[in-house]
Amino acid sequence: MALDKEDTSERVVAIARRLLEEGGAQNLKARTIAQEAGIAVGSIYNMFGDLNGLHLAVNMRLLSELGERGAAAMASLAQKQTADTRERLLGLALAYHAYVQEYPGAWAALLAYNRGRVHASETAPYVDRLDGLFQIIADVLSEGEPYLSKEDAGHVARTLWSSVHGIVTSGYAAHSGERKAEEIWRQVDLLVTTFLEGLRHRKGALTDMGRNA
Amino acid sequence: MALDKEDTSERVVAIARRLLEEGGAQNLKARTIAQEAGIAVGSIYNMFGDLNGLHLAVNMRLLSELGERGAAAMASLAQKQTADTRERLLGLALAYHAYVQEYPGAWAALLAYNRGRVHASETAPYVDRLDGLFQIIADVLSEGEPYLSKEDAGHVARTLWSSVHGIVTSGYAAHSGERKAEEIWRQVDLLVTTFLEGLRHRKGALTDMGRNA
Repeated sequence: MALDKEDTSERVVAIARRLLEEGGAQNLKARTIAQEAGIAVGSIYNMFGDLNGLHLAVNMRLLSELGERGAAAMASLAQKQTADTRERLLGLALAYHAYVQEYPGAWAALLAYNRGRVHASETAPYVDRLDGLFQIIADVLSEGEPYLSKEDAGHVARTLWSSVHGIVTSGYAAHSGERKAEEIWRQVDLLVTTFLEGLRHRKGALTDMGRNA
Repeated sequence: MALDKEDTSERVVAIARRLLEEGGAQNLKARTIAQEAGIAVGSIYNMFGDLNGLHLAVNMRLLSELGERGAAAMASLAQKQTADTRERLLGLALAYHAYVQEYPGAWAALLAYNRGRVHASETAPYVDRLDGLFQIIADVLSEGEPYLSKEDAGHVARTLWSSVHGIVTSGYAAHSGERKAEEIWRQVDLLVTTFLEGLRHRKGALTDMGRNA
């Protein structure tokens, strides 16, 4: 019985995910989901509270998958014995780019969801999972660039993530299609390589300047 | 009579903009707009083709305003005789941040619209306007960092815009509210300052490496 309940909840999340991928949050309709899952509309609310709760459940799934992709990228780099910070950061960025290209609709819906939230308490586990992703990047930085304090590594990790994210999702590229993906990747490469070069030159000045805005 | 038509179209765009600001693209309903503007639903389609056309008209307005803000920031920097590239780039980033904070809903809808477009031909004037914004940044770079080729200045301008955009719109900050805005700004400062430092050290290597992805 408990297993059945889990099965149903899994199925509902999978349907919701597909709907989000196809048409964003406005495509998430309780009636459609209930019909497809062969359950009553009320069951959805019993399981997830409301449609936001269901959307959050999908987002948790997406963040988990992205975390797994990040871990897989790190494992593959370790196998090649790549200790170079630039290559490791580009490997992680590539994993992110690939994931967003694979699920553009669901990922855009996650970003829109993120923007819409007001109460932090509601999304605490969500933020925790996001923090776990930043930590992968922070660890790469701490290992390869030992002059960074722990706090600075975290700050740099967030900044790099947000920047790569901006390049990958906005895609302000001069070309479209195949060449667009190529240009996005050129931007990511320019960003990571140049930023890292600057970081190594700034070193000591970092802590002061980062707070000097 | 021609003037009346322009007035009506202005009014429709203003209503659409408010609706987009309040609830995104799914809030853009022809019936609501027609009712508020006191015109027939058909008139909206006559003027803008469809709701996408109307959304595009709002986006053109937003990009124009953003261009004006950028020009105003540049004028204010010129008055202070600021020739420093970092300060000028941060001035432009600040103008962008302020604009997005002022119209978060309409700007998020513009980004979502951007993601959804397939046919480049449809959005050519839109892309032109976006290019105009990149050009402001490229000019700052060409003036302050003369070792950059014209092509590299454009490439760097796009990369910086996308990065700052990612930081400002995703807001992956550890804190919320007041402190969140502060941390976003710390990330922008870290990005611009460190990237510029790296750029100055890479110089000649830039053209090769940027294409080596």
